[in-house]
Amino acid sequence: MGFEEMWADLAPIGRSATSGGYFRQPWTSTDAELRAWFAEQAGARDLHVEPDLVGNLVAWWQPPAAEGPAVLTGSHLDSVLDGGAFDGPLGVVSAFAAVDLLRSRGFVPTRPIGVAAFVEEEGSRFGLACLGSRLATGATTWEQARDLRDRDGVRLRDAVEAAGFGVADDPTWRGLFDGRIGCYVELHVEQGRDLVDRGAAVGVASGIWPHGRYRFDFTGEANHAGTTRMEDRRDPMLSYAMTALAANKQARLADARATFGRVHVEPNGTNAVPSRVTAWLDARADTEEEVASLVDAVTRQATERAGRDGTTLEVTAESVSGLVSFDPDLAARIAADHAEGDWPIIPTAAGHDAGILSAAGVPTAMLFVRNPTGVSHSPEEHAATADCLVGVSALADTLERLAS
Amino acid sequence: MGFEEMWADLAPIGRSATSGGYFRQPWTSTDAELRAWFAEQAGARDLHVEPDLVGNLVAWWQPPAAEGPAVLTGSHLDSVLDGGAFDGPLGVVSAFAAVDLLRSRGFVPTRPIGVAAFVEEEGSRFGLACLGSRLATGATTWEQARDLRDRDGVRLRDAVEAAGFGVADDPTWRGLFDGRIGCYVELHVEQGRDLVDRGAAVGVASGIWPHGRYRFDFTGEANHAGTTRMEDRRDPMLSYAMTALAANKQARLADARATFGRVHVEPNGTNAVPSRVTAWLDARADTEEEVASLVDAVTRQATERAGRDGTTLEVTAESVSGLVSFDPDLAARIAADHAEGDWPIIPTAAGHDAGILSAAGVPTAMLFVRNPTGVSHSPEEHAATADCLVGVSALADTLERLAS
Repeated sequence: MGFEEMWADLAPIGRSATSGGYFRQPWTSTDAELRAWFAEQAGARDLHVEPDLVGNLVAWWQPPAAEGPAVLTGSHLDSVLDGGAFDGPLGVVSAFAAVDLLRSRGFVPTRPIGVAAFVEEEGSRFGLACLGSRLATGATTWEQARDLRDRDGVRLRDAVEAAGFGVADDPTWRGLFDGRIGCYVELHVEQGRDLVDRGAAVGVASGIWPHGRYRFDFTGEANHAGTTRMEDRRDPMLSYAMTALAANKQARLADARATFGRVHVEPNGTNAVPSRVTAWLDARADTEEEVASLVDAVTRQATERAGRDGTTLEVTAESVSGLVSFDPDLAARIAADHAEGDWPIIPTAAGHDAGILSAAGVPTAMLFVRNPTGVSHSPEEHAATADCLVGVSALADTLERLAS
Repeated sequence: MGFEEMWADLAPIGRSATSGGYFRQPWTSTDAELRAWFAEQAGARDLHVEPDLVGNLVAWWQPPAAEGPAVLTGSHLDSVLDGGAFDGPLGVVSAFAAVDLLRSRGFVPTRPIGVAAFVEEEGSRFGLACLGSRLATGATTWEQARDLRDRDGVRLRDAVEAAGFGVADDPTWRGLFDGRIGCYVELHVEQGRDLVDRGAAVGVASGIWPHGRYRFDFTGEANHAGTTRMEDRRDPMLSYAMTALAANKQARLADARATFGRVHVEPNGTNAVPSRVTAWLDARADTEEEVASLVDAVTRQATERAGRDGTTLEVTAESVSGLVSFDPDLAARIAADHAEGDWPIIPTAAGHDAGILSAAGVPTAMLFVRNPTGVSHSPEEHAATADCLVGVSALADTLERLAS
């Protein structure tokens, strides 16, 4: 099954008929369909699928003579809520297509090649991005994660068990990284317009900006929206609104990124001043110091406004990821000497499983495929098939170099 | 069963163990418990319960000689989400207690007296406040309302039917108001601090401020929160945030009330710029002109900001209620000549079923009971039992005057 057929096969799974966007949350029935698709693709290529105890998958291409530390490639199949088709699946589909391409060239790897699909990369269900690779590398322990709850109050351990994975209190997957993985290459649709601006179909990542997620809890006092005088209110919506504007302004000034994309209001009634507004700040910048200073500035302005509104503010860092620098030698080797010239080496502000593996000491590289609009995490996300096929070929070249 | 016993009996129904607030949404299992309580209280007093086709209830005290247009009293049993104990139920409990007090005085009415519990007064489920009394008076027709949907997509007609009411396409309750109701008196906890400031346990309403609910739909473009440059975004959260602050400022300047208490964000993910933010403005002021000018000013500023953010705005008036002036003669008669002197006559900014009945041409009055903090639509809402008992006595006096 070629690239386009695999793509067409995957397209309907978890797709909203209304928006055309994807709702591929982990450990759900949609997730089970994605896993069935993965197993079918692996089976068609005689690759052996090895799931771990939380649901990460690897399909192994291991000819008899292949030995030593493996070359891992792949990405993830889950999506943000109402996300696009490419973010994640493009890396998995391209990995299978690259295996086909290498075989058609008669290539036989001297090291095992694994096609991986990491679970809950987006953190859209349990709030912690790259949860699967974090658990697989030990960056987050099962003890730290198992009691996380989703929006409906379901605990991670129960969700994982309900999806048919036999969760022990110490998942064995971590062993995969104990000398078993030599390097990791992840292909991903670009989530910005750098490659468009450079006129390149493919690029190589230099690293990932540091970023964090911070929960802002504004607490005020519920009251009647009609009868409560404006001056008698303690309205957390106002403190939040000013904070969302301050975060935007601060990010513009600092050439960084700040987003409030998720809000929860209690009681969320039209005729009630809210008692509480909880909102999540996503903050990213060039350096860890810049992220910290951005969050500090927003927190300071939020606290000052809360004081004026008679509300209180509590800020909790839910996840913080440091700067990731991918292996520079590996990136230079991948980028050099192509028919099209050298591919550009660019940074990204998006988190990826590749960042987690790199932080765990695995030499890691990322390939990006051009995104004509730069739009991602949206039903509008897109990449041209011609560019995707250049990506497949680039990935095959890279795997060939690494597994020869 | 006396006032305090009735109150204790009602207290646990629909109460959140976490917040102590009430979730008494109409046509739910909690609503069925409230109806069972109502039927029990009516039964204990030999009052005949007459439900209508959508679930409004009246318990009739009609001695053989009582005839002519009825005196209706009561209020509602439903609550806002996480609301207080008093808003609504105080009027129903006080009505039953007033019947007891009148009987203990040996009073026999010459007109029928009805104790009413209107359904969905708060509009917390289907978004339209005073839905029960609107349907009962014909202010809203069944045809207009039956396809309203709640947060879960359930249609009003299905909810009403599931609750056991046999909804015809033309409910017969309306007939009750065809000459059958002579006047309506609603007792309610005050939702502000006017009576506290005046040192009075009880007051009489002069009228209800005009008010409306307006839905603001801000549409932008979903995108990746990390990789999308601040200047490339079309973020509806920013347009909304500025609008919430503008509404507050405008209301302060105009000595009016404006509240954004309910917000819905899509896709509501931490790492996604939202595609859409929907928020509801609750606006109230002294006159209809002032409400219109407040909403116009907020809409103008919101539209201007949306233009700068690259988002679009659509504003929909979901419900608009004109100024209600209660029967001034009735109010003066009720307020005059008490042991404590005259009761104050005050306006209110809260909507009530009494406003709907008044607009339908029924001579209507309201009694307020002092609220020591002014807090309402909140678990903190309170009234002292001593004040409530002054209210019961005031209601009994009023019913005696009207039904003699």
